Amino acid sequence: MASIAVLGAGRSAGYFIEYFVGLCREQNWKLKIADLNVDHLKHYQENFPLLELVSAELSKEEERETVISGCDWVVSLLPAFMHPDVAKNCLSAGCNLATASYVSDEMKVLGEQAAEKGLVFLNECGLDPGIDHMSAMKIMDELRTKGATITGFQSYCGGLIAPDYLQDNPWKYKFSWNPRNVILAGNGTSTGLKDGTMKVIPYQRNFQFPVKIQLHTGDEYDGYMNRDSLSYQSVYNLENLNTMIRGTLRYPGYCRAWNIFIHLGITDNSYLYPLKAGMTYQEFFHSFLNGNDHNDISASIKNTLGMPEYEQEAIDKIIWTGINSNELISIEEGSPAAILQELLEQKWKLEKEDKDLVVMQHLINYSLNGDEFTFRSSLSIQGDGSYNTAMSKTVGLPLAMAVKQFLFKTIDLKGIVVPIYPEIYNPVLTELEQYGICFIEETISEPVSESKPE
Amino acid sequence: MASIAVLGAGRSAGYFIEYFVGLCREQNWKLKIADLNVDHLKHYQENFPLLELVSAELSKEEERETVISGCDWVVSLLPAFMHPDVAKNCLSAGCNLATASYVSDEMKVLGEQAAEKGLVFLNECGLDPGIDHMSAMKIMDELRTKGATITGFQSYCGGLIAPDYLQDNPWKYKFSWNPRNVILAGNGTSTGLKDGTMKVIPYQRNFQFPVKIQLHTGDEYDGYMNRDSLSYQSVYNLENLNTMIRGTLRYPGYCRAWNIFIHLGITDNSYLYPLKAGMTYQEFFHSFLNGNDHNDISASIKNTLGMPEYEQEAIDKIIWTGINSNELISIEEGSPAAILQELLEQKWKLEKEDKDLVVMQHLINYSLNGDEFTFRSSLSIQGDGSYNTAMSKTVGLPLAMAVKQFLFKTIDLKGIVVPIYPEIYNPVLTELEQYGICFIEETISEPVSESKPE
Repeated sequence: MASIAVLGAGRSAGYFIEYFVGLCREQNWKLKIADLNVDHLKHYQENFPLLELVSAELSKEEERETVISGCDWVVSLLPAFMHPDVAKNCLSAGCNLATASYVSDEMKVLGEQAAEKGLVFLNECGLDPGIDHMSAMKIMDELRTKGATITGFQSYCGGLIAPDYLQDNPWKYKFSWNPRNVILAGNGTSTGLKDGTMKVIPYQRNFQFPVKIQLHTGDEYDGYMNRDSLSYQSVYNLENLNTMIRGTLRYPGYCRAWNIFIHLGITDNSYLYPLKAGMTYQEFFHSFLNGNDHNDISASIKNTLGMPEYEQEAIDKIIWTGINSNELISIEEGSPAAILQELLEQKWKLEKEDKDLVVMQHLINYSLNGDEFTFRSSLSIQGDGSYNTAMSKTVGLPLAMAVKQFLFKTIDLKGIVVPIYPEIYNPVLTELEQYGICFIEETISEPVSESKPE
Repeated sequence: MASIAVLGAGRSAGYFIEYFVGLCREQNWKLKIADLNVDHLKHYQENFPLLELVSAELSKEEERETVISGCDWVVSLLPAFMHPDVAKNCLSAGCNLATASYVSDEMKVLGEQAAEKGLVFLNECGLDPGIDHMSAMKIMDELRTKGATITGFQSYCGGLIAPDYLQDNPWKYKFSWNPRNVILAGNGTSTGLKDGTMKVIPYQRNFQFPVKIQLHTGDEYDGYMNRDSLSYQSVYNLENLNTMIRGTLRYPGYCRAWNIFIHLGITDNSYLYPLKAGMTYQEFFHSFLNGNDHNDISASIKNTLGMPEYEQEAIDKIIWTGINSNELISIEEGSPAAILQELLEQKWKLEKEDKDLVVMQHLINYSLNGDEFTFRSSLSIQGDGSYNTAMSKTVGLPLAMAVKQFLFKTIDLKGIVVPIYPEIYNPVLTELEQYGICFIEETISEPVSESKPE
């Protein structure tokens, strides 16, 4: 009898847990779900006696070890930074592991030990990374089977809010996922390949000149580069490409405004800001501006940027957040990024009636029999409310479905696995369609016009 | 009999070693000098049998331990990042330690253990930090003795080249000290206090708007903020100040050009650049520029900055370095910063006949008997050549002289010590004058006009 432990049962775990409880009940598998608070899951136990709910503080090693003990598989829905520690626990306990997070350098090393022990560490198996890998690899494997040569790959994904729920919000953004990840998005250096030339984009430039990406719906979005796209050339088995870009989508205008926060230094998470008791957001904000006379705050911001022509609507978004207000900062200690997050969690809060929106697009250029084509594959999924979000659905379901395939023993892979293999992506993508997660695909025989900086 | 070990005997150690060998010979103290190559010091052994020269690889713990063993004092001239390791060796061996480096967080903790063992860890005892602390504290202690209240403190220092040796060099800069420190200068976040308002300057803005600083000679320099000035309020015992800035000086124009390298991401030292075999500086450079058409390289740079009005003379300095040339990159692995350093080490090489220049200025505002004054103290020291540099002199001599005071047992301080105490700064500053290291001091009864962004 299989025995699985799920670590983390927060707001965003809903779809995963619903699906996985159903699966385990049907298969008569033992399931443990652990989090600080698991009371909201008690109703699942009514007709599923093999479900154990464990109230545990999962940041504590001993508590994690107790939960994991005796399980074949661990699915971690915890924050990404905890996954190396969870992986170490899995190595000690001889468990397989599944997460929706990127494979960190540390995880890579642990994965080698997992392979030696015959264990699977499945990662990058949510939405982005996750569904993007699966859907792109399915397209590209099919094209290559037909004899096509892939010459360009662009993939963009965004966790947004449906337009109807963004009245009076000039950013057109609310938090449908971990706010910390949104505040720190694009941190570090992003790399890609553009028309044959390698591109290296440091954090301080990543939001400055977004590209325009148009979905099949006709809607336009801003795209910025996401991490190290170059490393996916080998993952996707793509050599001799001209273009290789993985990116993130926001509504138009977001990136140019966010660029101001980055340039001023307000998204920095690397040091504790010297907070003083009774400090206001305005005092905090002004400490990042040149000079001390801020009667004309727009002029002060533009002068500090060194960009006197910066568009006013970007400045207006900054002011809208309340960062120039006399409200007191309510946290006592934190980085500039943490102080900004605390402010935006008030302004970008997902209300109960809000519906989120997940959008994704692949643009795959290929040549076949001497002709050039572009394959465009797009996804647009609206959530059902602030609890049953599209984000929770598109992250949770592929993870659950992929782990199911491993539990059914249809897959013979060990060590670090990401979902680029047909034996994973075929059954998962087929099953996702039953949940309405379907891509709109089209082939364009003329190469599509290049996405250009604004 | 005292026994001292000196770690590091590179180019910049000349003045320190000359002084310290003389001192130890005179006092009949045992002296060990260790470095990979110590052959150039053999002539010192002729009339000083107590001098031991040790060829050792000091990055190796065992070799350091062997050198340190049996010594009362260790003076480390090694790179700053090695000092915590050296400090741990000193703790084990029961040695006192002296360095010219900033007190890192790690050193602070080790210093507490040193204090418990009755040891001294003397730090920040070179030029900047070092002579700046000593000369500023001497002025401020004297002013406070007179009953003055210090209301503002600004201190700037630069390691430059004398103007006569900078023909055909548009940056007006060459390396008179560790090139790596120059490439990474200003990295991190700098903090200060300006006219009553805290200022937080992230790396990406630190070189953008330098302030103008005029020396007693009439020469003007660009100043940018240096690290955490705020923390020196408590070190200097300065509360209720309006202005507190520690900064670094460059010739006018340097900062605006260097700002381009920073903004593009070329001074980043946090990751290995994806170098390819046979890559040119131009390919490297263009990977940091938006778009692929760089026929008009000035326009490409300005567009990438998002600052179309950026001054051409700054762009010209960038091109002058050769970073847009077809020359091959000669290192096989490195960060963008390391690749830039390798290029600049060719362009900014100190030639044998070159003379460097150390400049320093304190501007101290104070009120006394109801009146406001500014005390200006300036230093300008020219080197004697590319070996006997002003930098080597002003870093090495104060360190040697301060250690001498401790060895003479005139100072009763334990744990982390920086040279802010009269028992250190009085004898050292007096002795430095004999070597021509003298400040020009003047009191201005009108407050001097504020230094302003360009």
